[in-house]
Amino acid sequence: MRQAFHELVLATRGRGLVDFTEAVDGWIAQNRFQNGLLTLHLRHTSASLLIQENADPDVRRDLDAFFERLVPDGDPFFCHTAEGADDMAAHVRTALTAVNLSLPLQNGRLALGTWQGIYLWEHRTRPHSRRITLHFIGE
Amino acid sequence: MRQAFHELVLATRGRGLVDFTEAVDGWIAQNRFQNGLLTLHLRHTSASLLIQENADPDVRRDLDAFFERLVPDGDPFFCHTAEGADDMAAHVRTALTAVNLSLPLQNGRLALGTWQGIYLWEHRTRPHSRRITLHFIGE
Amino acid sequence: MRQAFHELVLATRGRGLVDFTEAVDGWIAQNRFQNGLLTLHLRHTSASLLIQENADPDVRRDLDAFFERLVPDGDPFFCHTAEGADDMAAHVRTALTAVNLSLPLQNGRLALGTWQGIYLWEHRTRPHSRRITLHFIGE
Repeated sequence: MRQAFHELVLATRGRGLVDFTEAVDGWIAQNRFQNGLLTLHLRHTSASLLIQENADPDVRRDLDAFFERLVPDGDPFFCHTAEGADDMAAHVRTALTAVNLSLPLQNGRLALGTWQGIYLWEHRTRPHSRRITLHFIGE
Repeated sequence: MRQAFHELVLATRGRGLVDFTEAVDGWIAQNRFQNGLLTLHLRHTSASLLIQENADPDVRRDLDAFFERLVPDGDPFFCHTAEGADDMAAHVRTALTAVNLSLPLQNGRLALGTWQGIYLWEHRTRPHSRRITLHFIGE
Repeated sequence: MRQAFHELVLATRGRGLVDFTEAVDGWIAQNRFQNGLLTLHLRHTSASLLIQENADPDVRRDLDAFFERLVPDGDPFFCHTAEGADDMAAHVRTALTAVNLSLPLQNGRLALGTWQGIYLWEHRTRPHSRRITLHFIGE
């Protein structure tokens, strides 16, 4: 049994979903991990990690649009406004989703379904650099 | 320290919550796992895994009804409509909940509270067959 | 490779976010854990575990206020009302957030970002005693 850590740094272009499944698969392949548990943790409070459909891009468009309607930027209701109209909305969107993912790895392959991809969901409107810690335990 | 994998296949009857705590407990008992970490991953993007109250069935009814009001099927706002009026709503419901769960196991028992059950939440209106990967690491 | 378990019992003062990062760090330091995976599981269905901003208290105020608007207490829509007007709202809030967290630990430090704290989110209006199971696997 062994453990390994890695940090991915992803540049976002502002609000939207970024598929980084390939970067995760690359780290697994490079280390020849076979069976174990992969944990991903995003070190930010205004973006999320999400497993979602990787086929029709309209799904990502609709997800983002739904969240913009559910949690409007610049809602007069919010007190925390010092960092811009999209900041508190980004914190709420993060609370409604997740910053950790746990994925079993079997025979060198993540237990993802055919249509599942791993996404970073940027909730701020401006581009950001986002850090994700990867941890593997297994063989 | 050892690892084990298992796949559960659950048939749903359409939208609603299915308690599968017994199936998980059965796998643990059969393998005599004592102490460790159990991870569950659902291989789909239009259903969720959820830990919720296992006492009053009205809780499940209200959860489903709340989500139907929050994320209406056939919302004219959605672009992704090719797979039916409930499909994009199902993706949003999945984003608002989770597809992974992590549960400690101590002395052969999952660390669930008295009122907690493990549920598969089907978000599509028609019956589906859903696959869940179970991973155990421990002793 | 070793494992350890711990139970934290937190007293809440009613609805709101309680930062318990220090209690988690204390358990890690006391056991001299260096590298591994920490899992937290909340044994209740009307409260959540959340990683959120630990700087401006307005963020916690706005989060709670947003959820009160999104999931109103005493919504006439709910059937499950026997335990009070805030009970079913609390179950929905739990479904929209999470009861498990998974955090890598590297060189004795949790992989939390600079602005991330670990919170217990009480969703009931009255004070409660909440139990959280901690599990560590690693070195």
